Amino acid sequence: MLDRLRDLIPEPALRRLPWYLAYVSLLREKGVEYVSSTGIARGINVDASQIAKDLSFLDIKGKTRIGYEVTLLEHKLEEFLGFRKGHRAAIIGVGSLGRALMQDSGLTNYGLEIVAGFDVDKEKIGTSTYGMPVYDIADLTAKAREMQLEIGIVTVPVEYAQEAADAIIAAGMKAIWNFTPYRIQTPEGIVITNTSIYAHLAVMYNRMLSH
Amino acid sequence: MLDRLRDLIPEPALRRLPWYLAYVSLLREKGVEYVSSTGIARGINVDASQIAKDLSFLDIKGKTRIGYEVTLLEHKLEEFLGFRKGHRAAIIGVGSLGRALMQDSGLTNYGLEIVAGFDVDKEKIGTSTYGMPVYDIADLTAKAREMQLEIGIVTVPVEYAQEAADAIIAAGMKAIWNFTPYRIQTPEGIVITNTSIYAHLAVMYNRMLSH
Repeated sequence: MLDRLRDLIPEPALRRLPWYLAYVSLLREKGVEYVSSTGIARGINVDASQIAKDLSFLDIKGKTRIGYEVTLLEHKLEEFLGFRKGHRAAIIGVGSLGRALMQDSGLTNYGLEIVAGFDVDKEKIGTSTYGMPVYDIADLTAKAREMQLEIGIVTVPVEYAQEAADAIIAAGMKAIWNFTPYRIQTPEGIVITNTSIYAHLAVMYNRMLSH
Repeated sequence: MLDRLRDLIPEPALRRLPWYLAYVSLLREKGVEYVSSTGIARGINVDASQIAKDLSFLDIKGKTRIGYEVTLLEHKLEEFLGFRKGHRAAIIGVGSLGRALMQDSGLTNYGLEIVAGFDVDKEKIGTSTYGMPVYDIADLTAKAREMQLEIGIVTVPVEYAQEAADAIIAAGMKAIWNFTPYRIQTPEGIVITNTSIYAHLAVMYNRMLSH
């Protein structure tokens, strides 16, 4: 049932669910027991009818005039979003950004378990970063099987992005989280998610000029 | 002229420009002298007519049958995107993610100069992180003036996101880069950019289930 609902949810709604989760977690910490979509709307500045519609994809019912049970809603949101399941990932490219992600323990709260790094640099191979081993990228296929790696996080310099992605695919991993601004080309069946924080910078600078 | 064109560009086009920049920088490093929009299209998997249209917002003309001069295009893109100008920023919340951004020297290449961190934790105040001072959040207004801070990067725990934003606004800074999933409310005239990498995780996990 969960998987069927997941298939139906439009991506913009899916992207909004973590906002609700953040607010609901905050309410739970404050000891609030129930919250309505109107209450969430006031707290995070999103239209209440939109929230109600987005939450309808979850396997949860609110009570009339009382709303949703906060702890249950938090649990259902985390479960629906895949944050309660550990997804095993590796950093490909243990440079500045790669190390940055390896040290962000916050990712674990969202179901991402970074367990190793891979690099081509002989100086880095065999060392450990924030307690995680750094391996030779040439060993990715063997290690991916051994460590049950599902997600490859691409933090190499932009000119090696496609090469890194090809290595991840060859290693049998099913998802690529691309932090480079390069548009990686992937075959059918591979999940690719692009997070270009630098593109966000461009948008921010542009808005700053217009203000 | 640059500012006028900047006002006209639609946000989706603006978000694509860093992709072209990444590819063009790669070509320049390889010693390529000219590139056409068709060439860029082949390299990064985006429609050529879209690229030509997006690049028409830049103050640059390609030559018929030869294309754009690579070094000039790279320069114009960096300039247009604001990556050649230093934007002074501070990390609000020197936790795991805050430290991660402070150590990502790659941001400097995109015009972001993180120069300080601010926190409420007495253990952190007065120390330095990756060579940057960590100050008391209570001193933000004074330090913002002294250090000419423009951008506040919000990496506090989600329940303090609004409070951190309010402090940034009170300090007279003009832009907020929000890394929390909380929908911060800001008055007119403040630029807010939301980068919720955890929402990207939700989308990725969801696609992995459907494959």
